[in-house]
Amino acid sequence: MQAWKEYQQKNKDRFLEELLALLRIPSISARSENKPDMKQCAEAVKQQLLSSGADKVEIYPTDGHPVVYGEKITDPSKPTVLVYGHYDVQPADPLELWHSGPFEPVIKEGKIYARGACDDKGQFYMHVKAFETMVQTNSLPTNVKFLIEGEEEIGSPNLAKFVASNKELLKSDVILISDTAMISLENPSIDIGVRGLSYIEVEVTGPNRDLHSGVYGGAVANPITILAKMIASCHDENNHITIPGFYDDVIESPDAERKLMAQAPFSEQEYKDDLGVSSLWGEKDFSTNERTGIRPTLELNGIWGGYTGEGAKTVLPSKASAKISARLVPNQSSEVITAKLLKYFKEIAPAGVTVKAEEHHGGEPYMTPVD
Amino acid sequence: MQAWKEYQQKNKDRFLEELLALLRIPSISARSENKPDMKQCAEAVKQQLLSSGADKVEIYPTDGHPVVYGEKITDPSKPTVLVYGHYDVQPADPLELWHSGPFEPVIKEGKIYARGACDDKGQFYMHVKAFETMVQTNSLPTNVKFLIEGEEEIGSPNLAKFVASNKELLKSDVILISDTAMISLENPSIDIGVRGLSYIEVEVTGPNRDLHSGVYGGAVANPITILAKMIASCHDENNHITIPGFYDDVIESPDAERKLMAQAPFSEQEYKDDLGVSSLWGEKDFSTNERTGIRPTLELNGIWGGYTGEGAKTVLPSKASAKISARLVPNQSSEVITAKLLKYFKEIAPAGVTVKAEEHHGGEPYMTPVD
Repeated sequence: MQAWKEYQQKNKDRFLEELLALLRIPSISARSENKPDMKQCAEAVKQQLLSSGADKVEIYPTDGHPVVYGEKITDPSKPTVLVYGHYDVQPADPLELWHSGPFEPVIKEGKIYARGACDDKGQFYMHVKAFETMVQTNSLPTNVKFLIEGEEEIGSPNLAKFVASNKELLKSDVILISDTAMISLENPSIDIGVRGLSYIEVEVTGPNRDLHSGVYGGAVANPITILAKMIASCHDENNHITIPGFYDDVIESPDAERKLMAQAPFSEQEYKDDLGVSSLWGEKDFSTNERTGIRPTLELNGIWGGYTGEGAKTVLPSKASAKISARLVPNQSSEVITAKLLKYFKEIAPAGVTVKAEEHHGGEPYMTPVD
Repeated sequence: MQAWKEYQQKNKDRFLEELLALLRIPSISARSENKPDMKQCAEAVKQQLLSSGADKVEIYPTDGHPVVYGEKITDPSKPTVLVYGHYDVQPADPLELWHSGPFEPVIKEGKIYARGACDDKGQFYMHVKAFETMVQTNSLPTNVKFLIEGEEEIGSPNLAKFVASNKELLKSDVILISDTAMISLENPSIDIGVRGLSYIEVEVTGPNRDLHSGVYGGAVANPITILAKMIASCHDENNHITIPGFYDDVIESPDAERKLMAQAPFSEQEYKDDLGVSSLWGEKDFSTNERTGIRPTLELNGIWGGYTGEGAKTVLPSKASAKISARLVPNQSSEVITAKLLKYFKEIAPAGVTVKAEEHHGGEPYMTPVD
C-alpha cells in the first residue's frame, strides 16, 4: 500500500472527528449574534493548519470577519499552490425543516449532514488533510498556501482589500478553489467559471401603521399586493428579465461553448426527480445547464409582510419586504446591476406607497478561457 | 346632577380599573396557546356581568371558545335589548411595533392603548357599565340580555349553531352591536351593514427542499416569484378583482343610497393625513367610503417565504405562503366566494409547482334596509 493511503486509513477516524468539531461551530457570517463564533472558528482553522503541518499561520483581522492565512514553503524555487476556502456558513433557518440540528452533525448512509459540510468546511478541510498526509509522508511536491476567509456567504466585502494589500504574501502559481458544483457524484467536474451576484432588499411601506382590513380594505394600497406586482413585473412570459438594461453587458456565449456544454453528461429526468418537480422552468431557448451556468438570473430569496402566524388575522399591513438577488455572467458588473435593480424598484412604486431599496452585497462573475 | 351621572362620576376610577384588568388578559382566539387565557377571560366577563347587576349569567361551552350569556329580566312585558360583544382579540404581533405591551394597557392623552381596547372589550364593557348605572339608579327601562362571544376574530365558527340552539334564550326586540366603525370622533355613527369575509391561505411548493440560488437559480420555478405572479393577477389595472365570477352575486347599491353615502361627512385629506399616505388606492369609479363600505375587496393579510432574517442568504426556497381575504357585500356568499378563491389559486398554478389552498373562516355580509 502506498504511504499516503496507509496514513489516510490510519488517521481516518481522527480526520472525521476534527471535521465534525469544525462543523459544530455556528460560524454564520450574516448574523451579528454569531460574531464570537466566527472568532472561535477562525482560531480552530488556525490550529488545524498548524497541527496539519503549516510552518506559519496567522489570523488577519479585517473590517469584518478575520482571514486565516497559513503556509508551508519547502523550497522557494518550487511552484506554489494557493488553496482558497471559507469557514463561514449561511444562516440555518428555517430550523424546523432540519431533521437534525444544523450544528450537530450526523452521518447517514455515508453522508455528513450539517450546515457547512459541503459549503465550504468539508471542501477546504479535505485540502488541509491532503496537505497533512503529504507532509507526513514526505510527498509534498510544492509549496502550499492557505487562504481561508470568513465572509464568502456575505459576498466577501473585505477580501478584495486584503488581497490587494497582501500581494506578495499570496503570490502563487496555481489557485485551487473547491467551493463550486459538480455535475454528479459519478462525474468529477472542473468548473471554469462562477457567476457573480447582486443582492438587494426592498421594503414597501403603505399606511403608517397596520390597519384593519375590514375598515380600510379596498381604499389603501396594500404593500404586499404592490410588492407582488413589482416582483411579477421582473420577468416576462418567456422568463426573460425585464429590468431595463439588465442584459446590456452580457457577453453571449459562442455556439462552440454551448455545444461543449451540451456534451456534459446531464439527465434532466434525474434532475427533476432529485428536486421533486414535474417540470423545469427558466429562460426560453436555453437548456437547464445554460440557465444555471451561462445565463444571468433574478431570484427571490425571501419575502415577508403582515400576519404570518397561526390562524387568521385581518390585517392590512403597513409594510412588506423582499430579498432579491441576481446571478451575473461575464461581463456584467455587480455594481452596475445593483444600481439598476435599486432604481427599478424605486421607480415602479405607484403613488400611495414608498419604497426603500438597499444593497446587501455583490460579487463579480469570472470565467477561465476554455482554451 | 342626574342620578346616573352622579353614579358614573363616583365610580369612574373603578370602571376604568375593571376595564384595564379585562384588557390585561391575552384572549387571542386564533392561537391555541392562549386557550387558558380565553377561559380566564370568559370567567372574568361572567363576574363582571354578575357584579354589574345581571340576575343570571352562564358560560356556555362550544366546540371552540365559550360564549358568555347574562340577563336581567325586570318585566317580561317590557321590550328586551340584546347586547352583542366579543371578548376575544386578534394576535398582537408584530410585537416590535407596539410602543407598550399589547396586554399592558397604558393611557396617553385620554386614550387607552391595549389590544382589544377598541375591538371589542372597550365597547361591550361600555354597555355593561351603562347597564350597571341604570340598575343602580333604578332607571333601567327594558329587559337586557348580553351575548359576549369568544370567536369573533376567527369568524365566529360556532356562534351560528349556538344561536340556532338557543332561540328562546336570545329572544329580543332590539340587538345592539358596537363592534363597528364611526366616521370620526365628532360624528357619532350608526352602521347599517357589515361586510362579510372569505379568508384563505395559499401555499406554493416548488422544489422539495430549499436550494442554493447560485447552483439552481434560473432553472427551477421559484415559489415566491410564482406566488407573487398569482397575487398580481388578482386585480386588473382598475383594481377590479379578476377572480372569475367574483362579482356575480353582488347587488349593486342603488344611486339613491350612493347619494346618501356621499352626504356623510368625510375628508379625504384628513383620511390620507391620518394614514400617512400621499394617495389613496382602490376600485375605479368608486369613492373611498364606497370602497370600504359597499364594494367587495381582496386584501393580502400576510406573506412569507425563504430567508427573512438579518443579512443575505442565497436561498431558492421550497415554499412560499400567503394569507388572503375578501370582504363581501350583499348578496355574496362566503362559502361561494371561498370556493372560487381556492379554485382560482389552484388552477392558475403553472407546471413545476404545487399549490395547497385552504379555507380559514368566513362570515356573511349583512345590511339593514335604510328605510
